[in-house]
Amino acid sequence: MTDITKRLAKTSKELDGHIKSYIGDENPDNLIEAARQYPYAGGKRMRPAMVLAACGAVGGDRKKAFPLAVAIEYIHNFTLVHDDLMDGDEVRRGMVTSHVKYGMATAILAGDALFARAFEIMTDLDVPDKTLREILKVVTRAVWDLARGQQMDINNENGEEVTMEEYIETIRLKTSVLFASGAAGGAMVGGADGKTVDAIHSYAMKLGVAFQMFDDILGIVGDPEKTGKSSGNDIRKGKSTVMVCHALANLKGEDLREFRAVLGKNDASEAEIDRVRDILRKAGSIDYAISMAETFTKEAIACLHVLPEGPDKEFMVGLAEYAMAREV
Amino acid sequence: MTDITKRLAKTSKELDGHIKSYIGDENPDNLIEAARQYPYAGGKRMRPAMVLAACGAVGGDRKKAFPLAVAIEYIHNFTLVHDDLMDGDEVRRGMVTSHVKYGMATAILAGDALFARAFEIMTDLDVPDKTLREILKVVTRAVWDLARGQQMDINNENGEEVTMEEYIETIRLKTSVLFASGAAGGAMVGGADGKTVDAIHSYAMKLGVAFQMFDDILGIVGDPEKTGKSSGNDIRKGKSTVMVCHALANLKGEDLREFRAVLGKNDASEAEIDRVRDILRKAGSIDYAISMAETFTKEAIACLHVLPEGPDKEFMVGLAEYAMAREV
Repeated sequence: MTDITKRLAKTSKELDGHIKSYIGDENPDNLIEAARQYPYAGGKRMRPAMVLAACGAVGGDRKKAFPLAVAIEYIHNFTLVHDDLMDGDEVRRGMVTSHVKYGMATAILAGDALFARAFEIMTDLDVPDKTLREILKVVTRAVWDLARGQQMDINNENGEEVTMEEYIETIRLKTSVLFASGAAGGAMVGGADGKTVDAIHSYAMKLGVAFQMFDDILGIVGDPEKTGKSSGNDIRKGKSTVMVCHALANLKGEDLREFRAVLGKNDASEAEIDRVRDILRKAGSIDYAISMAETFTKEAIACLHVLPEGPDKEFMVGLAEYAMAREV
Repeated sequence: MTDITKRLAKTSKELDGHIKSYIGDENPDNLIEAARQYPYAGGKRMRPAMVLAACGAVGGDRKKAFPLAVAIEYIHNFTLVHDDLMDGDEVRRGMVTSHVKYGMATAILAGDALFARAFEIMTDLDVPDKTLREILKVVTRAVWDLARGQQMDINNENGEEVTMEEYIETIRLKTSVLFASGAAGGAMVGGADGKTVDAIHSYAMKLGVAFQMFDDILGIVGDPEKTGKSSGNDIRKGKSTVMVCHALANLKGEDLREFRAVLGKNDASEAEIDRVRDILRKAGSIDYAISMAETFTKEAIACLHVLPEGPDKEFMVGLAEYAMAREV
């Protein structure tokens, strides 16, 4: 394990008890069980770790940020429950998804309940009332944007033509805004001034974009044994990643024809996917995407110059570097 | 029109502009259109009217309560969008439901988006920050309870045996808590003290129960031409209303056998429904339900004795009386 994955694992352990302390036994059992499923199942806990780090990095008391960290994780989980249903995904990290296990209705309600509980938890934050209002503004707006991002993603998969700008906008909404609202919220809990909050918000927005771009890249060139995802599925789905946008703009002749033939082909063979991978490599599309993602990462790190040195800033920088270096 | 329906219509008109001012044009169009569908379509606007009345009744400035009124209406609409999907309902008030019109995924997202926007609107309330925190505590808890109530309702329809107490608990969660959080929130916006807020909360809790009970009664003995609902559908669904619980506890012999045979029979004929209606009448189950609902109504009104006389208190009393007297 790298330092950053060790630190993530440590924070995850630190958070676990908190995450499991906010859903008590109540009627009806099946809804409570379904609401607990995703947040109790673990995961990288990257979002809540970022909340705590942002709070600590501005000199705040990390403990005060725990309720916000849990709330952000619940919001993330609520969107996963609903997204899995919409996307018809049956397995997530080796776990049967909510709608398969509990049925459609209970999955919808479990998501709604997690969403409600997230905001209820936030009302208990030990911060000045004025700060709570500011945190809520950022987080409520993020959830609105998450819905927009997911809808754009669905529209894209339904075959609408997507430009690179539109794709990046979708990532910003689907991934970055929640990262950023958590990080900014953590900084607010820590008592940061407006300029510092803005810098941390920008950092997390850029980091979210970089993270998703590297995810896309791993989806093409990653080792399925490590990522746990079957390589090339984004190609089979016809997803408009940066690589795809670059390729469509730069390929010509036979390569373009072949590329188009496999893109969005549900049942493309491994050989066809391999061929597309070669075409993407040759066209420079993968290098182009890596370079763009690295730029976002570096810009993200640059935003942090406003912060004093320390372990929490180090973690935030490390998280950005990890986005680039990881294999899963 | 009675005084109360006139007043509801007037408030509804007063609210319309506000309700339509909180969802601006944004991408993607289809999500925005879906999010607007229910709140923009009108309706009785009973919940937001109660928010405004509670604010006015405690001497507050009704205008200050508009954002909360809109938020409560959005929350109500978010639950309707999701409930319609779960229940597989295809028409609501003559309108094609969200999931039929926009598809499952967009309906889920439209509900989520309305939910998020409701809380975003609340962060703009012109109240002391401390009051905002208190209002949010009540409303977030209400949304959590709404999910529990809907899940209980689904469990009931799946044939679980339900006692009268359990049925009333379900109504409290499905209907009363949102009424009550809106009314209590309105009173808080109006600057009411804790005792007054509690009294108004109790009023609305009881009123919600009474309202749903009369709804159930209208579902059996109401005129379908007026209610717009096909009479007897609750019987076909096997719904455990107060009437049904009373009948099951009191019927004997052939009547009980006949009643059980039709209860939950999806394709029961009009003649069978008529026969069940007669059995319920003869057993005193309908009178029993009316009497219980009237008791809740009177207790609701009694809670309001803490309020000074005035048009807003009059409206709140009138709304309770309307719950009993209405034909739709």
